[in-house]
Amino acid sequence: MPQTPHIERHFTGSATVRDLVIGRADGLTVPFALAAGLSGAVDTTRIIVTAGLAEIAAGAIAMGLGGYLAAQSEAEHYHAERQREVTEVTEKPEAEVTETAEVFRSYGVTEEESRPIVDALRTRPEAWVDFMMRFELGLEQPDPRRAVVSALTIAGAYIAGGCIPLGPYMLLATASAALSVSVVITLIALGAFGYVKGHFTGTPPWRSAMQTVLIGGVAAGVAFVIARAIA
Amino acid sequence: MPQTPHIERHFTGSATVRDLVIGRADGLTVPFALAAGLSGAVDTTRIIVTAGLAEIAAGAIAMGLGGYLAAQSEAEHYHAERQREVTEVTEKPEAEVTETAEVFRSYGVTEEESRPIVDALRTRPEAWVDFMMRFELGLEQPDPRRAVVSALTIAGAYIAGGCIPLGPYMLLATASAALSVSVVITLIALGAFGYVKGHFTGTPPWRSAMQTVLIGGVAAGVAFVIARAIA
Repeated sequence: MPQTPHIERHFTGSATVRDLVIGRADGLTVPFALAAGLSGAVDTTRIIVTAGLAEIAAGAIAMGLGGYLAAQSEAEHYHAERQREVTEVTEKPEAEVTETAEVFRSYGVTEEESRPIVDALRTRPEAWVDFMMRFELGLEQPDPRRAVVSALTIAGAYIAGGCIPLGPYMLLATASAALSVSVVITLIALGAFGYVKGHFTGTPPWRSAMQTVLIGGVAAGVAFVIARAIA
Repeated sequence: MPQTPHIERHFTGSATVRDLVIGRADGLTVPFALAAGLSGAVDTTRIIVTAGLAEIAAGAIAMGLGGYLAAQSEAEHYHAERQREVTEVTEKPEAEVTETAEVFRSYGVTEEESRPIVDALRTRPEAWVDFMMRFELGLEQPDPRRAVVSALTIAGAYIAGGCIPLGPYMLLATASAALSVSVVITLIALGAFGYVKGHFTGTPPWRSAMQTVLIGGVAAGVAFVIARAIA
């Protein structure tokens, strides 16, 4: 659907903020739980910081690079399917007319009732292909540049998020002291980012905040119990 | 769109396999990179196993519980939007007629050409709501039971996947010996699951295999370098 350049720019802006918030909320959880878990097993902060930074690097790369490659595959899949639709529209228009009527029939619209619109689409092959991409195949045109920006934003936010639970272990001498500070600041940060995240995902903000705190708390608690049981 | 019970069952079956494969391919990456990273810093396998299991627990909970809660929010969002469409169709049908014509106009179909189909939809309010949910809002009806199964499958696969890179550290005495074995078996496993994953995500299998190996290899390499630099 056509959009003015202004709206387009506005959308990209808020999508980047959304990636930042989502990446940071997720980046808080696993490094937090890992550091808390290791606090149940060792009391040297050096090992916890090493493990935490290794996890943050691995998680940021897995999320960023993985997300980028997935977006790239999706874009190729879209273009391949679109090419197939273009071929069908130009070479087998009769079969495509049947498929179009089929889309409407699944909503209880008879072939007779949908004929005017099918005929109208026939005279505009470009729009017909767009219509079938969205309504027959359920595919939206992906923005390739968006994928790179999104991957870098999520990875960067994951790294920034991971520094919050890990900070106290870098500054304090014992793991047990660092753990208490880490729990307090991370739960507050999880709540705050969960609240803002709700605005972008459509979940009511307070519920989103409680969910983010719950996931982080449960993950950290289980990791702590498991690590203490082994050590 | 109506589907026979047989097709429905077949779909659910392959969706579960897909979740298994995706969860396992992802679950391999971060625990592998974390264990490899720690091997660059410490030579006691006990700490690596502890950190690895804490990470697997945290990652499985974050992915499983996080995915479940997100699916639940999505289902609520769908039902709220559907309720809003039902109200519009029953209480403001004239405004809804304009919105429906708008959907078609964005494909170059004039109001005159789309009138027969808009009139046809008007006589079937239920189908009209379904049509607008998909074509105006781009929302598909989510399956709530699917969310629970999907969350448990992904979490379970993440745990099972994480045991592959961690196994050698549990069985061998030194981290350096375990690292070599872990690298070999994990890269083979990443390639194999990446290959199968390609079948479900639509990426050519060999490319999917190379991508999964690349992501795991880069993540593990960077984690190793960072951990060695700190330690």
